[in-house]
Amino acid sequence: MTPRELAKANLENLYRIFTVPEAPDSTLGRVDQAITDNVTGFLQEHIVALEHSLEDIEEDFDDPCIPEEPTFVSEYSAFVKEKLVAQSVHTAAPGFIGHMTSALPYFMLPLSRIMTALNQNLVKVETSKAFTPMERQVLAMLHRLVYEQDDSFYRKYIHDSEHALGAFCSGGTIANVTALWTARNKLCGPDGEFRGIAREGMGAALRHLGCEGLAVLVSRRGHYSLGKAADLLGLGRDNLVLVDTDDRNRIDLDALQRKIDQLQGEKIRPLALVGIAGTTETGNVDPLEALADIAAEVGCHFHVDAAWGGPTLFSDKNRHLLQGIERADSVTLDAHKQLYVPMGAGMVVFKDPAALAAIEHHAAYILRHGSKDLGSHTLEGSRPGKSMLVHAGLSIIGRKGYELLIDLGIARARQMAEKIKGHPDFELITEPELNILTYRYNPSWVQTALETADADQAERINRLLDQITRLVQKVQRETGKSFVSRTRLRVPRYGVTVLTVFRVVLANPLTTDEILDAVLQEQLAIVERDEIRQLIQELNETFNPFHGKNGECC
Amino acid sequence: MTPRELAKANLENLYRIFTVPEAPDSTLGRVDQAITDNVTGFLQEHIVALEHSLEDIEEDFDDPCIPEEPTFVSEYSAFVKEKLVAQSVHTAAPGFIGHMTSALPYFMLPLSRIMTALNQNLVKVETSKAFTPMERQVLAMLHRLVYEQDDSFYRKYIHDSEHALGAFCSGGTIANVTALWTARNKLCGPDGEFRGIAREGMGAALRHLGCEGLAVLVSRRGHYSLGKAADLLGLGRDNLVLVDTDDRNRIDLDALQRKIDQLQGEKIRPLALVGIAGTTETGNVDPLEALADIAAEVGCHFHVDAAWGGPTLFSDKNRHLLQGIERADSVTLDAHKQLYVPMGAGMVVFKDPAALAAIEHHAAYILRHGSKDLGSHTLEGSRPGKSMLVHAGLSIIGRKGYELLIDLGIARARQMAEKIKGHPDFELITEPELNILTYRYNPSWVQTALETADADQAERINRLLDQITRLVQKVQRETGKSFVSRTRLRVPRYGVTVLTVFRVVLANPLTTDEILDAVLQEQLAIVERDEIRQLIQELNETFNPFHGKNGECC
Repeated sequence: MTPRELAKANLENLYRIFTVPEAPDSTLGRVDQAITDNVTGFLQEHIVALEHSLEDIEEDFDDPCIPEEPTFVSEYSAFVKEKLVAQSVHTAAPGFIGHMTSALPYFMLPLSRIMTALNQNLVKVETSKAFTPMERQVLAMLHRLVYEQDDSFYRKYIHDSEHALGAFCSGGTIANVTALWTARNKLCGPDGEFRGIAREGMGAALRHLGCEGLAVLVSRRGHYSLGKAADLLGLGRDNLVLVDTDDRNRIDLDALQRKIDQLQGEKIRPLALVGIAGTTETGNVDPLEALADIAAEVGCHFHVDAAWGGPTLFSDKNRHLLQGIERADSVTLDAHKQLYVPMGAGMVVFKDPAALAAIEHHAAYILRHGSKDLGSHTLEGSRPGKSMLVHAGLSIIGRKGYELLIDLGIARARQMAEKIKGHPDFELITEPELNILTYRYNPSWVQTALETADADQAERINRLLDQITRLVQKVQRETGKSFVSRTRLRVPRYGVTVLTVFRVVLANPLTTDEILDAVLQEQLAIVERDEIRQLIQELNETFNPFHGKNGECC
Repeated sequence: MTPRELAKANLENLYRIFTVPEAPDSTLGRVDQAITDNVTGFLQEHIVALEHSLEDIEEDFDDPCIPEEPTFVSEYSAFVKEKLVAQSVHTAAPGFIGHMTSALPYFMLPLSRIMTALNQNLVKVETSKAFTPMERQVLAMLHRLVYEQDDSFYRKYIHDSEHALGAFCSGGTIANVTALWTARNKLCGPDGEFRGIAREGMGAALRHLGCEGLAVLVSRRGHYSLGKAADLLGLGRDNLVLVDTDDRNRIDLDALQRKIDQLQGEKIRPLALVGIAGTTETGNVDPLEALADIAAEVGCHFHVDAAWGGPTLFSDKNRHLLQGIERADSVTLDAHKQLYVPMGAGMVVFKDPAALAAIEHHAAYILRHGSKDLGSHTLEGSRPGKSMLVHAGLSIIGRKGYELLIDLGIARARQMAEKIKGHPDFELITEPELNILTYRYNPSWVQTALETADADQAERINRLLDQITRLVQKVQRETGKSFVSRTRLRVPRYGVTVLTVFRVVLANPLTTDEILDAVLQEQLAIVERDEIRQLIQELNETFNPFHGKNGECC
């Protein structure tokens, strides 16, 4: 071929990838069809259960060079199937009860494809048209779920370019950041000569307010995104004040009051009080009514992080657990958690439709004043039309469908808690309030011994139990049949010591009673392994100083 | 049915949506198949060309109530097809040359479905396994594209848990924020008694540094996300110092130096200098080498926003336009722009693999110290596996494929510029340097008259031309056959006045020469409409004071 012919051939090949669909009998076409026909079967068949080490997997992804020449789609698809899909995590498996990602309703897949094919950009009306009112409707629906304003309120604000009922985000972290950013800018808004923190920055704002710093208060169970927000917003992580919790992982109101008094003495002004509706680690809900009262008294923003527990509001039976949430100035909700939408969808709603004006911004080519461009009050710029999948979930599953899902999860968590309490060698660490619980393997004789152990002895026992928990969790994960996660918690009945525990999240409706039994049985089998028997032997020696390996009594 | 039977039936229906796929002959199944077979045909057939008013569309999305009862998937799918898809924007259409969203390669759709079905969460290895090394590889590939370090560098850092070559984000805005957040925290890092801005906040940091504020410098063409970042990070928008540009929309180096000197006098410390590699509005590239020198001299972070122009590095012929980018401390790249990945994928890469330590964070249940969890240095928390689609693009299209796409776009922009210059009634406002240009309709006799017009007269003429541009753009958009965007620019040859102009982005490989002709012809036809003829009549009157409607001369 002449260079001219070659260039022409290359261009034609390039056009092909934009214009010629994969043939149904191609590798990618067949994978696509398999997922369409039966995603559960596809995942079961293609994800390898037994875990490879991360180091082994890394070998398939260690070339930093972008290939010079194009690769056939078929060749690449085979690679994806064998190297990426095979070694991914089966998040939809009903025995994987360790994280907040669950099975997806079937309709989410074809609807996601429509969304991807349309490739709308929600930053502005010009690149999203109907997606803009659709997203505003979704935000109104969630706003109404939380705040229950009347029809005239929503008629007025739902599509009003001068107001916003919330912001759609890529996830709960950006939602929490958006809430605190808004609260910060409102507290430090323009006032006389001071043009506001958005214009003049944090240094000038502190001088204007005459204080040393701005603080956010939340319980020790607060999500780590709040620490990121405190850093990002220039507050400083030291000004994210972590308040102790009671024996049910809820913020201790007396401790909170003491912290507030202390801040006053330090000339640090409370910017926001954050209540948690479903802590990430234990699923507990702060006393939101009481927090609303305190925030009102202090005169600060009241934010509720309901990323996990928000959808509990769908349930007639359980809604009361979140009482007081309607008094929050802002509420974070994650759609990719209990709204069963694919990863990458969060929201923050604001009680006051004018609140987001505090972070409003404009540009010459988009987001013009008076436009309905959603981008004028989102932290992110260009964004996909993920809200369409929330719209689909709310429409197809409906309030009652979500209620069933929520009630099912909470009931399932109680069942599992009963199983754990009923077994002599397990110890329930935190009772489920919503659908999350924590526990550990702790042989009955150790439990008995712990009751009378002195502090030193208890410490040694708990450290050994921590090791057992870590090991059991690791082996179970690597075996790939089921999965629980683990975390570290301060548990009041054990004093200040921090325990390593199993953490279970029950949000997958396909998780049956039998699966829960199997998870526990598998753990009891793992405990019989040599390396863990050895740790139990060490536990035993803790009570028999003459055989103590530390030798301090010999 | 008894209540018990009803409850059972409801539960069974609920299980069905998680376990039974859409039938191929269902409404959703048919839509899905149509997109699979021929997405171009599907979009052409289902997106209505003629624009409905936003107010009309809003009527379909004005119910703030979440439906109580479930809806049939078929019913909902029909709604989506008729109300959402029909009224969305045909971003992939080759005549839609007004925004940065283009057609997608076919393979992106089935691969997106795999990604959605797997529903991985990249915040941690436990919920993403192979996706974690895959994403690190993608970041290494882009890092290498920019910084061209040697093999041993990448062997060392690509999968090293203690380092990160960059962060994957939902888009360029979060990428820019991440870059400036990192720069801020590095400049204000722990030092003696001072525990760093991340811990102590902005107030303490300014006291420690002994300055009044921290500034970010960028040209007037800087993306609006930088203003958001300045607000968010507590710098204040006033400390985003906008530097004038030269007649090619590049930062004016003398003006920059003056601003730097001025900041020194105000005790404001330059935190970062931002160079733009492809301005959003005009596609120009700042003199990056010179900016690197100045940043080195000032001792501040040098960030390059290459969200648009970064992929120019693929092109042997055009790479030189970005010379100096390899000296940047950080570089933003958007994959949903010129990497042809669906919406929602951006990246920031850092020259120094230790840089992101400045924003590192951990939590008890994930992101543990020493883990390879990607979430320990991303602004976002839970994130989808979008990097898989970047991996696919780089692998399948290859360096040479992207080179073709880039060269094609730049050549096409030059062709269009020639067409505009060749037509007496169009005025090219900014020459394309990459693949973006701006122009306006400006009848030849007005162009001639403007050459001798006095300031007042020129002002009046330009305001009328602005109105014409706005109107033509609106009518063309509403007609739905083609689309150019518009923006407002200060154009040196017109002094300080700001002009409204058409903006064209040529990144869709399916945009042909004939389509460009058609876009211009359509605009010339729109100009013949009464409402625009009237404005042209007014223009005419501007030169004939005895017919002036302002009456000041009568």
